[in-house]
Amino acid sequence: MPAVADGPVAILGLGVMGGSLAQALAASADAPELTGWDTSTESADAALAAGAVDRIARSLADAVEGASLVVVALPLEATLRTVTELAEVRRAGAIVTDVASLKAPVRDAAHRAGLAGRWVGSHPMCGSEDSGFAAARADLYAGASIWIVPGTPDATARVAALWRSVGAHPLETDAEEHDRRMAWASHLPQATANALACALAGGGVLPTDLGPGGRDMTRLSASSPDMWVDLFQHAPPELVEGLRSLAGEIAALADRIEQGDVAAVRSYMEAGRSWKGQS
Amino acid sequence: MPAVADGPVAILGLGVMGGSLAQALAASADAPELTGWDTSTESADAALAAGAVDRIARSLADAVEGASLVVVALPLEATLRTVTELAEVRRAGAIVTDVASLKAPVRDAAHRAGLAGRWVGSHPMCGSEDSGFAAARADLYAGASIWIVPGTPDATARVAALWRSVGAHPLETDAEEHDRRMAWASHLPQATANALACALAGGGVLPTDLGPGGRDMTRLSASSPDMWVDLFQHAPPELVEGLRSLAGEIAALADRIEQGDVAAVRSYMEAGRSWKGQS
Repeated sequence: MPAVADGPVAILGLGVMGGSLAQALAASADAPELTGWDTSTESADAALAAGAVDRIARSLADAVEGASLVVVALPLEATLRTVTELAEVRRAGAIVTDVASLKAPVRDAAHRAGLAGRWVGSHPMCGSEDSGFAAARADLYAGASIWIVPGTPDATARVAALWRSVGAHPLETDAEEHDRRMAWASHLPQATANALACALAGGGVLPTDLGPGGRDMTRLSASSPDMWVDLFQHAPPELVEGLRSLAGEIAALADRIEQGDVAAVRSYMEAGRSWKGQS
Repeated sequence: MPAVADGPVAILGLGVMGGSLAQALAASADAPELTGWDTSTESADAALAAGAVDRIARSLADAVEGASLVVVALPLEATLRTVTELAEVRRAGAIVTDVASLKAPVRDAAHRAGLAGRWVGSHPMCGSEDSGFAAARADLYAGASIWIVPGTPDATARVAALWRSVGAHPLETDAEEHDRRMAWASHLPQATANALACALAGGGVLPTDLGPGGRDMTRLSASSPDMWVDLFQHAPPELVEGLRSLAGEIAALADRIEQGDVAAVRSYMEAGRSWKGQS
């Protein structure tokens, strides 16, 4: 297995994703030299104080100067911008990865920036509804699956090694296939949590009125609007398809309950349970 | 404060709710004598083996014989039937409570059965998507809120004391007000989890494709269809109203995303987060 990096690792963005990666790498057996960068002085200072990074860079150019591996851990729009800017400032040969929840837009930006092959897409299947370095934790990636969109074999192996070194499981995928899957499996649940929060607000329900089930069902609604607006904007058509399918399911359940069609309501509840019971 | 009971407590139904109550009472400082009853031999045997009850009754009549307090911990339809049957078999003066998620239907059944005043409605704001005594746990009620529909002051005080003895917080409410609130705050989130499960099934997504967020958003879909079909059947009109409101929210979000209306999508996500941020 290749070493995680043959030089410093630069982490651009020290929020939940980048901050957790920095913490985990700093605590790992063969910790690389870590340079952090964040537009939030608060997150940057906190990461340095916590020993998660060895130094805070003064600029993007300073951050990636001499880095052998650059991890972009920013919301999608900022990731696209940064990948484009990196084309000008990167060290020849540095590998670039990112952690955005959609991979085709980042791949396209990386290719336009001349990073083809040296860009490897990453999407960790973990996170938090909280934001900033304060919400980072060293064990965020332990046991998590990471979708990987491959670049060159060497670049891919190094990014996979990075994730394995923090206890995660890399799985290769195709960018379009990944994005379609995420529209259903990740973005639709997030949108559902926000829709439920909006419906509950309209019904005069307070978060404190909820039991554990309702709290879990609205937990994600606290997530960063910045992050999700970017993702919804670049989402493949499957997200809108999934939302319309869900709206139809909910309207159908309302009709069945209103009609007192007990057998149909039972089938409905059994279908959901049966799906959830699949391993 | 009154003692929990001046004689044996009978718990009818030893699943998650009744089984957890039996375990918690058996472990409490001033444990009453506990009689259990369940149509499932498996749950009954497990409860006895775990020391959660002192004996398993052979019949409903046997269970409530001599009991000073009867806790009906069954799905709603079975609760309504049992409350009716209790009218014939109860010891004069025994207090009856139940744990169903809707209170007006149980109150009406209790009044028809001549239990007015001695019936006190309970609705614990906790539970599990798993079923049976195997999913019961002694700390289920620790810190949980319990909605209480009062009977006579003495009966109400005794039922409140029962819940306090297992670490829960009783809060008095009116049955209709409670049911309207639950339609929004409990039944709507449950229905949403099932609708999302059905939509994901239709989209070809497997539960194993989900990250932590998606898993939380579908956790409740594993809940007992028996329990929920009963509740949806007896739900007040607010449930259908809530479902239609939610379907409308989701369809509106789909439109905004499809139209590329970034500002509207941002407002939408901010509205959900802002609601969730209320304390």
